[in-house]
Amino acid sequence: MGAQTARSLHFFAIGAQRMPLEIVHALAQERAAAEVNGGLGLLDPARAAAIAAAAAGIADGAFDGQFPLSVWQTGSGTQSHMNVNEVIAHLASDALHGGQGMVRPVHPNDEVNLGQSTNDVFPTAMHMAAVARARPLLASLAGLRAALRTQAAAGHGIVKVGRTHLQDATPITFGQEFGGYDAQMALAEAAIRRALPDVHALAIGGTAVGTGLNTHPAFGAQVAAVLARRLDAPFVVADNLFAAMAGHEALVGLHGALRTLAVALNKIACDIRLMGSGPRAGLGELLLPANEPGSSMMPGKVNPTQAEALTMVCAQVMGHDVAIGIAASQGQFELNAYKPLIALNLLDSLRLLADAMAGFQVHCIDGIVVDAGRVQALVGNALVGVTALVPHIGYDRASHLARHAQAQGMPLRQAALELGGISAADYDAWVDLRRMAMP
Amino acid sequence: MGAQTARSLHFFAIGAQRMPLEIVHALAQERAAAEVNGGLGLLDPARAAAIAAAAAGIADGAFDGQFPLSVWQTGSGTQSHMNVNEVIAHLASDALHGGQGMVRPVHPNDEVNLGQSTNDVFPTAMHMAAVARARPLLASLAGLRAALRTQAAAGHGIVKVGRTHLQDATPITFGQEFGGYDAQMALAEAAIRRALPDVHALAIGGTAVGTGLNTHPAFGAQVAAVLARRLDAPFVVADNLFAAMAGHEALVGLHGALRTLAVALNKIACDIRLMGSGPRAGLGELLLPANEPGSSMMPGKVNPTQAEALTMVCAQVMGHDVAIGIAASQGQFELNAYKPLIALNLLDSLRLLADAMAGFQVHCIDGIVVDAGRVQALVGNALVGVTALVPHIGYDRASHLARHAQAQGMPLRQAALELGGISAADYDAWVDLRRMAMP
Amino acid sequence: MGAQTARSLHFFAIGAQRMPLEIVHALAQERAAAEVNGGLGLLDPARAAAIAAAAAGIADGAFDGQFPLSVWQTGSGTQSHMNVNEVIAHLASDALHGGQGMVRPVHPNDEVNLGQSTNDVFPTAMHMAAVARARPLLASLAGLRAALRTQAAAGHGIVKVGRTHLQDATPITFGQEFGGYDAQMALAEAAIRRALPDVHALAIGGTAVGTGLNTHPAFGAQVAAVLARRLDAPFVVADNLFAAMAGHEALVGLHGALRTLAVALNKIACDIRLMGSGPRAGLGELLLPANEPGSSMMPGKVNPTQAEALTMVCAQVMGHDVAIGIAASQGQFELNAYKPLIALNLLDSLRLLADAMAGFQVHCIDGIVVDAGRVQALVGNALVGVTALVPHIGYDRASHLARHAQAQGMPLRQAALELGGISAADYDAWVDLRRMAMP
Amino acid sequence: MGAQTARSLHFFAIGAQRMPLEIVHALAQERAAAEVNGGLGLLDPARAAAIAAAAAGIADGAFDGQFPLSVWQTGSGTQSHMNVNEVIAHLASDALHGGQGMVRPVHPNDEVNLGQSTNDVFPTAMHMAAVARARPLLASLAGLRAALRTQAAAGHGIVKVGRTHLQDATPITFGQEFGGYDAQMALAEAAIRRALPDVHALAIGGTAVGTGLNTHPAFGAQVAAVLARRLDAPFVVADNLFAAMAGHEALVGLHGALRTLAVALNKIACDIRLMGSGPRAGLGELLLPANEPGSSMMPGKVNPTQAEALTMVCAQVMGHDVAIGIAASQGQFELNAYKPLIALNLLDSLRLLADAMAGFQVHCIDGIVVDAGRVQALVGNALVGVTALVPHIGYDRASHLARHAQAQGMPLRQAALELGGISAADYDAWVDLRRMAMP
Repeated sequence: MGAQTARSLHFFAIGAQRMPLEIVHALAQERAAAEVNGGLGLLDPARAAAIAAAAAGIADGAFDGQFPLSVWQTGSGTQSHMNVNEVIAHLASDALHGGQGMVRPVHPNDEVNLGQSTNDVFPTAMHMAAVARARPLLASLAGLRAALRTQAAAGHGIVKVGRTHLQDATPITFGQEFGGYDAQMALAEAAIRRALPDVHALAIGGTAVGTGLNTHPAFGAQVAAVLARRLDAPFVVADNLFAAMAGHEALVGLHGALRTLAVALNKIACDIRLMGSGPRAGLGELLLPANEPGSSMMPGKVNPTQAEALTMVCAQVMGHDVAIGIAASQGQFELNAYKPLIALNLLDSLRLLADAMAGFQVHCIDGIVVDAGRVQALVGNALVGVTALVPHIGYDRASHLARHAQAQGMPLRQAALELGGISAADYDAWVDLRRMAMP
Repeated sequence: MGAQTARSLHFFAIGAQRMPLEIVHALAQERAAAEVNGGLGLLDPARAAAIAAAAAGIADGAFDGQFPLSVWQTGSGTQSHMNVNEVIAHLASDALHGGQGMVRPVHPNDEVNLGQSTNDVFPTAMHMAAVARARPLLASLAGLRAALRTQAAAGHGIVKVGRTHLQDATPITFGQEFGGYDAQMALAEAAIRRALPDVHALAIGGTAVGTGLNTHPAFGAQVAAVLARRLDAPFVVADNLFAAMAGHEALVGLHGALRTLAVALNKIACDIRLMGSGPRAGLGELLLPANEPGSSMMPGKVNPTQAEALTMVCAQVMGHDVAIGIAASQGQFELNAYKPLIALNLLDSLRLLADAMAGFQVHCIDGIVVDAGRVQALVGNALVGVTALVPHIGYDRASHLARHAQAQGMPLRQAALELGGISAADYDAWVDLRRMAMP
Repeated sequence: MGAQTARSLHFFAIGAQRMPLEIVHALAQERAAAEVNGGLGLLDPARAAAIAAAAAGIADGAFDGQFPLSVWQTGSGTQSHMNVNEVIAHLASDALHGGQGMVRPVHPNDEVNLGQSTNDVFPTAMHMAAVARARPLLASLAGLRAALRTQAAAGHGIVKVGRTHLQDATPITFGQEFGGYDAQMALAEAAIRRALPDVHALAIGGTAVGTGLNTHPAFGAQVAAVLARRLDAPFVVADNLFAAMAGHEALVGLHGALRTLAVALNKIACDIRLMGSGPRAGLGELLLPANEPGSSMMPGKVNPTQAEALTMVCAQVMGHDVAIGIAASQGQFELNAYKPLIALNLLDSLRLLADAMAGFQVHCIDGIVVDAGRVQALVGNALVGVTALVPHIGYDRASHLARHAQAQGMPLRQAALELGGISAADYDAWVDLRRMAMP
Repeated sequence: MGAQTARSLHFFAIGAQRMPLEIVHALAQERAAAEVNGGLGLLDPARAAAIAAAAAGIADGAFDGQFPLSVWQTGSGTQSHMNVNEVIAHLASDALHGGQGMVRPVHPNDEVNLGQSTNDVFPTAMHMAAVARARPLLASLAGLRAALRTQAAAGHGIVKVGRTHLQDATPITFGQEFGGYDAQMALAEAAIRRALPDVHALAIGGTAVGTGLNTHPAFGAQVAAVLARRLDAPFVVADNLFAAMAGHEALVGLHGALRTLAVALNKIACDIRLMGSGPRAGLGELLLPANEPGSSMMPGKVNPTQAEALTMVCAQVMGHDVAIGIAASQGQFELNAYKPLIALNLLDSLRLLADAMAGFQVHCIDGIVVDAGRVQALVGNALVGVTALVPHIGYDRASHLARHAQAQGMPLRQAALELGGISAADYDAWVDLRRMAMP
């Protein structure tokens, strides 16, 4: 174990959470740095190749066991960066030694870290890892949206009670309701996509404080180009390297968009849980998949567990959002020293949302069946037709009718005929629940 | 208008929110300072009396129009403190002049502020205002708890469907449910009461940085004693004056307890809203008071508006809690410079919760009526009896029965007799919903 | 006072905060509804004109005293909407009566509210008010950015100590530092601008649950067009009206962008406060404007009050962000019933940030002067040159030199010559602070 | 692998975080349940003993590999509870089989879970785990407080510049400053201790919905007694079992107290980081331990890494606090279905704070040395004496003197003598920094 890695292990025995491997792998993409430095003639080609090869192995996950450091360490991530540098130096030295007899060991700072500083490399890795994690998130999101639209299509003509304030309102269809869910998610998806370009802008080339001291003027752009090609993402050098190291607005913005997604998902999951409540003393409009026994004590109980896992994830993302906001607001001068926390929370949110959406889709939404009989009974019995009377008899008379029907426990139609002086023909012409839902 | 007041108005044209009058009134309680300084012989008795009299008028609200400063000002509150000092000096000078011919004007710093600094006076005022605002809060809380217990007593024997995961579980009574609400609130109330003693500890006497420079050694304790007597609260000088000015743990703790209250209230309000959902396509177990027309468009609609106002207040309190936490965490050296924000949010939460609980009690809880027929129909139709079979036939057989009954849409009793090989006599002896609810 | 207004006053005596007047004014823009309904032949022209005229007066602020309702009311905002409808009806009736003799009073629901529901009108007003408030915010933001760039230009060639982890790092210029601030704000500004188009999409035309029941099919689009023309903003009807009433992703997204702005501002304000610390025992790099006496007790003290007001505002915005997120996540079915809270917090954040940025610019940034002597002394004395030695002598030897110089309290140059075996000529050629800052 | 465990693994492939082992171990303390049921004659003694023995092994950590479920599962924790039940049943069956020939396998529900429900067992385990984790937290807290007091004693007589608003104020000693830190932490510690008794109250005995259905009336109290004795904690049955399952006020309260601790720690860590800033262009009052190289690029750089790890932990705790608050506010009827999230965040906060405080103490506070020369130079050069002049020459004249000295860059004494008409003897008698700090 390298000296700085060993020191960090000693000094930071905090919590169970290690530096996320996504960050380690992204740091190892500084293989690109060795390649660029080699190409620029700043590093011996053989040594550059050995460094790049070692780094590639790390980036591919072949040495994950060698990165034991806690995420709760220096706020710059220097220790994990040096952990990567040390492992690279060790692997590259071994390779060179094996190939060429006795050679000078690769130096983790002077050679592996050549032309770089943690202060530009670590935020670069944060952005790379976030971009990588955003892909499965967007895939899960697309999958869930498609499933919602499938349900919307299935429920196109099924009229149900619309509810506002949890009170019976006017008719709506399941198609409209699930279409609304999809539209809420579409807003969140667009917000995430709008936030990504700022994340494609990397701090690389800024070195210690953003000035690019001790690196080649072309270094940053060339590394970004290599990363873009290799990882198939439009990475570029950030417009302002000082801002890219001292602030994390790009990542705050991305997580803010995840928060918007969590807000939308929470509403959707709660609605579905509520529509699936029952089986006999709830709303019971939807039959949710019965994936597992729900209770250790109550036989036959089935619970909306996918919705619960998803709503828990949403609450966690909302908590992470606060942690990230606090952290990002407290940079000082040329560095924000909360980088590991920001990485941890952002990557966690990206993964949790991706996984929970995928599960919610496959294990819940895909299997939802409308209980058509129950739905029809509810909407038929409710007073939701009264608003259709307003254009004909006015708000005040309609209110009177509705209150009377409710107080007497009678159907609205009966109240309208008996009390409202409305003919049956008029009532039936005016109050058509299907047409009310789809005017 | 005094010079410093005018300056602040000019430099801080931010937002619509003025320094809360509760803080202004509490600052004016530095009348006690004049009295103590007079008693210690540090201030001419006549001038001390004039200052005290002027301050008393402000504390009583007679000059509220003279405190126009924005709450978004210096983080120490110095400007509002000097606003008070200047108004006192002006009023006292007028009074002395009126009484005695030409006199030297009262000096806002050397005389009104004698032996004090904003840095000890302002946090003292924050604590005083919080203590004052906690009283109506605790009164509202007690009122709401009493109303919940009244409902619990009324619903003592009314068996209903218990629900976990929003799914039918085992029987429970309204008495138990409302008793549970009261118990949740009891925990929150106890947390608030436990948090108050730290708020009774005042920073007074610490002056600029906590050392008590330029004040009489007895000053702080004597002022605290005067305040305690006058305001009937157990005010004392804080154990450590450095901590009392540089940190705000006492107020963070109090607001944390308010957050706990908000958490409990939110759950209770949502439950009641859900039980009142309908009138025909919801759970419909409770009839909530119909206080006002619910919709500008849908006639006869009645909404659970008191629950909505309360849940909004809860969300606001949870937001305030974050603002206060951030603010309190960022003091530096001898001063926390977020005092106006902490005061604003804390006092707002105290008032909002007090008012919303009072409204929720009087306009919602007090008027709730159980729809006994609906409740009986729901619990009678549900499968909630199945758990009572477990001790007799085991979890696995009971599960089978419950699933069969639900799939066939038949009563549990029928399924038990037909499929379960249970005799009618055994079933009726084993499954007694009332005894299940109150074993 | 109208009946529903009076009822709300009675039932919602919560807190001191009334429904924001921006919302009232925006609601009164439903004058557009009367115009459109008149144009569509759904409303008598004279009565439509009277309604529109009354509403115009309200929108212009001529009747602000007639909107006394608490913001803590029904979660749909119906009561304030009916307050507006009732005042319009009253004013319009008066006008018609005055003009034409005895006439049928204007009905607040059947005529003023014709073709509308609070559920589409209120979120429409929320979006309109947010768009209106975003303008001064963007103007303040632009002003502050310009001021930062002016300072960056002034400090273009002034080399100072760069700091990471609050520790001396490598040289940087004030130009780079203030340029970085501007770049952080540029990211936030872009995020706000990207969030606005979703806010231009209005719920109007959805009526009660999003289906457009009881309104003309062209109503929403025509109203949006009138509003767009009148208010000079690209308002359109939202793609999905169900989502626009049940969710508030657009506003959550906008506030998330404000949160990003707060994060950036907080960092900037704290940096400037720290650089202005002193005057003798702090960093003392910047001389901040001395706007007012800083202390009631300590003579001559000047404090960074503008930075404090701004950081308090940032903390408040971060709290509001949580309140809005919670609120928006808890819509149910066809309605989110936290609308007043969302409006209150969003509008407050918009205003607070706009005002605080403007003050911070004019009363702080514009007047900042670099203390060039102090800055030069600090950078000259520091060890910041050591990193320039690395390419020449390697990381390990350079580390040794730096530690030696610090331990002995000697200049780096002396240590380099004495201990490092570096010639004076080499040292002076290698270590050029200005070139280090601007390689 | 048991059936329900396998199902959960399949349905909940969310994130990397498993159910915390502390919860698994606590759940396995339901060995107490078997013992109590055995004692009550409800379970065959041999089978009860086998269950208890199996559970004891799990509680001791001997089977940690058999609990692979994600924490993001059903909101009641039923799946992890059944995971434990299934492993116990399997182990107990094996043991019985091994001892007695062919026997009926132990049933995970009917025997292991006898008289219990996840709904009372899981919150019981949450409380037990929290109590267990609170112990090392309180130990770390005590250690850090002791270290702060040691530093306070060492700095008892060392006068330094007191600072408010980051501006030079009046003198103070390191003893007072570190004493203030200890006092801030004392407030937080007291808050934590006050919050614990509610956590000692367990939901056990409530079974499914709080009524105690299907369990012996003495079960809960006997289990609590066994747990209290075995774990040496004053566990009791909660006063109200409905509240203990539907709400989590006790845990919200405990985490709120942790938030208070985080608030205090953040302030302290930031102060120390700031006092250690430099080494040459910062405040430089404290020399922090140089634990590790600070930079991958800048030689000799040493960073306040312990303070950074701690402040990151504080931000994380503030985020967790929001997640827990949201989660706890959204229970429904007889169950809060966010239990795994609450457990995860609470236990994480407890551990992170415990570990980070311990590291901060040992690796930072214990090794802090005051740079006495630097401190003396700063305080001697500053204008902090001016406030001592106020009682003698008044606020206005003293202000004038201070401004003059600062504008001219001269010592205060010189300004006082030249401009203020103060004799050298008077000045020296009035301005004694040490007496100002310790009047």
